[in-house]
Amino acid sequence: MKVSHANLLIGQSGGATAVINASLVGAVEAALAHRQIDGIYGMHHGIEGLLKEDLSDLRQQATKVWAQLLHTPSAALGSCRYKLQEGDVERAIEILRRYDIRYILYIGGNDSADTAHQLAQAAQRLGYELATISVPKTIDNDLPFTDHCPGYGSAARFIAQATMDSTMNTVSMPWHYPVKVIETMGRDAGWLAASSALGKRDERDAPHLILMPEQRFVAARFLEQVEAVYRRLGYVVIVAAETIRDEQGQALGASGQVGSDAFHHPLLSGAAQYLVELVKRELKLRARFDKPGDLQRMAYQAVSPVDRHEAYLVGKMGVAALLDGESDKMVTLVRHTTPVYHCTTGLVELARVANVQRLMPAEYVDASGTMVTAAFYEHALPLIGEPLPDYPRLEIVKVQS
Amino acid sequence: MKVSHANLLIGQSGGATAVINASLVGAVEAALAHRQIDGIYGMHHGIEGLLKEDLSDLRQQATKVWAQLLHTPSAALGSCRYKLQEGDVERAIEILRRYDIRYILYIGGNDSADTAHQLAQAAQRLGYELATISVPKTIDNDLPFTDHCPGYGSAARFIAQATMDSTMNTVSMPWHYPVKVIETMGRDAGWLAASSALGKRDERDAPHLILMPEQRFVAARFLEQVEAVYRRLGYVVIVAAETIRDEQGQALGASGQVGSDAFHHPLLSGAAQYLVELVKRELKLRARFDKPGDLQRMAYQAVSPVDRHEAYLVGKMGVAALLDGESDKMVTLVRHTTPVYHCTTGLVELARVANVQRLMPAEYVDASGTMVTAAFYEHALPLIGEPLPDYPRLEIVKVQS
Repeated sequence: MKVSHANLLIGQSGGATAVINASLVGAVEAALAHRQIDGIYGMHHGIEGLLKEDLSDLRQQATKVWAQLLHTPSAALGSCRYKLQEGDVERAIEILRRYDIRYILYIGGNDSADTAHQLAQAAQRLGYELATISVPKTIDNDLPFTDHCPGYGSAARFIAQATMDSTMNTVSMPWHYPVKVIETMGRDAGWLAASSALGKRDERDAPHLILMPEQRFVAARFLEQVEAVYRRLGYVVIVAAETIRDEQGQALGASGQVGSDAFHHPLLSGAAQYLVELVKRELKLRARFDKPGDLQRMAYQAVSPVDRHEAYLVGKMGVAALLDGESDKMVTLVRHTTPVYHCTTGLVELARVANVQRLMPAEYVDASGTMVTAAFYEHALPLIGEPLPDYPRLEIVKVQS
Repeated sequence: MKVSHANLLIGQSGGATAVINASLVGAVEAALAHRQIDGIYGMHHGIEGLLKEDLSDLRQQATKVWAQLLHTPSAALGSCRYKLQEGDVERAIEILRRYDIRYILYIGGNDSADTAHQLAQAAQRLGYELATISVPKTIDNDLPFTDHCPGYGSAARFIAQATMDSTMNTVSMPWHYPVKVIETMGRDAGWLAASSALGKRDERDAPHLILMPEQRFVAARFLEQVEAVYRRLGYVVIVAAETIRDEQGQALGASGQVGSDAFHHPLLSGAAQYLVELVKRELKLRARFDKPGDLQRMAYQAVSPVDRHEAYLVGKMGVAALLDGESDKMVTLVRHTTPVYHCTTGLVELARVANVQRLMPAEYVDASGTMVTAAFYEHALPLIGEPLPDYPRLEIVKVQS
């Protein structure tokens, strides 16, 4: 489908990232450069904004705002987590028709790809000429067909650096709190938890155990592993995805298994706190946790320049795809390793993407189930941009009296 | 006391910071530049290392390590939290005598100042010629007589930036999790919690409530304040020190007041989690928390250049004071505001410092008890170094159909 003149509508959807605005900027800059595009509109809070006719004219923004947004975390248009209800797509098409919107660019994760797909299909069914392209975004790195997801590189950089830095504290006084748990996001996939290993150079370095949601948690085995590391090093740093589940498929910390009392308040705990309590009770070791929470998706200071660039690129190429007559597709990142790491983009049918999750492949996890392999480093290291710092250790040269 | 030639012993003590190594580097570089100093030794893990005769020869380190340590968080010598036991100081003096150590530089907080003071006094009592200088360090900013404490500026920068960034996520989808709690450290003082306001430009910006340990927590009043902000903005960001206490002086989350069950597991909770549960139960609002934990004291990426420089300065001036014949004193930072903000150093008797805490003065907290005043900004803003980012907002220019 090619139209000679049309209005473009852009939306941001799902959990925001530190670079999702870079995709918006890439899209807007591409749109501004093409005469076929008349209006450049933004939905406030994704599809919810469309359904409420809460649309903003992006041509009316001060020019400098786009350069600033390239370095601003979170979704400047506002985001949403909205599942389409019956009648929504018909209503959406009617609104699009009224505003003469023929192009939609929707920046988001799995659910957002599904929304974009449903809009494309409804338009076809209702005979409304509409092109819809989805632009990938998620810190969880769990979209299929794309080599990786914009947003992941920065979140991975945050987690890797946070693991290094927080561990520096543990190491300065190992007997004070010998066990530390760092809780990460990542939904059903271990990509983010795994990224904690990106600053690890040798077996002394943290993390010592990574608990990924793909692996079922077995308390007895976990405690054995913790004890073994403790005996060897005197301290243990565990990185745990907030979504790890036990053998019954129950989320840790939601079950109230910790404590001898009848504890039925699932929201009082979480994976990290559960693990801390377990270690204290069973191994009698002092333990505590860090839970960076939303910081890992938003940290301005952890943004990977590679990630920012790629987020910009997929936004820009999304508009290019629309202008090329493409629809009902998602932009993908295609990795090249020669002469050096870089990405170009491709396209994949949304029908194949929507609601499909890409978990950590088996070859990225070693036999212990709690550590990543060299193949994972090869995948993830280029995405975090500049190298992580290489903290020196003092040489121990004993003074004799 | 001036000696013509002597060995210097340096230690790091208490909770490490992102810039405590800068003080070590400042001290070592000053010592290397002065011929009166023979051996330059480091205690491993502070006074514990001295008592175990675990001392390292710092002249044997590769020269480049000092430049690297200037940018390495945590205590490279190792740290400790050790209260002197009976007989310890006598034993310490005997060891110092054996190694002919005449100068001690001890980098730390309140407890460490006390240790340095006790060593100085024991030496005098036992007729051993020893000069002891304490160098301030603490993210809690609670040492008296010094304008502020090295380590605070970087931790404050981390908390301010984290509050800005994490809030960006809340704002992108306010109805998803309208209430967020960010938990900070700070012991009995609100300095760190207060620093969360350093990026706040107007009343929409976070934090909306700061819970400082100097103010007793009253649940009914807190819930009223949360509800008022929620009605006005649609979301609420609360920054709470982990040590806030209720009217009975009991730490929040240690009491098990949350939940209708008999919950007697104090370590299962914490201030942030307690507040989240309280808001969910009483206001029926979705809430969650971030707990950066050790990240706030260690984050490499949040280091304030001003803080790093001042940490270096107090280390260097500590050695200068020793060479000047000073003893039983702590180096202080003295603020100057003309022509621009900068600090010189002074000295204060350790007897006046040891175990004294400087809490947030009344003029830094407004009448609500949950927000800081302009005077606080004046105090803290110069310490965090470069300005915080100024995130743009898109103009809302509604499209008409």
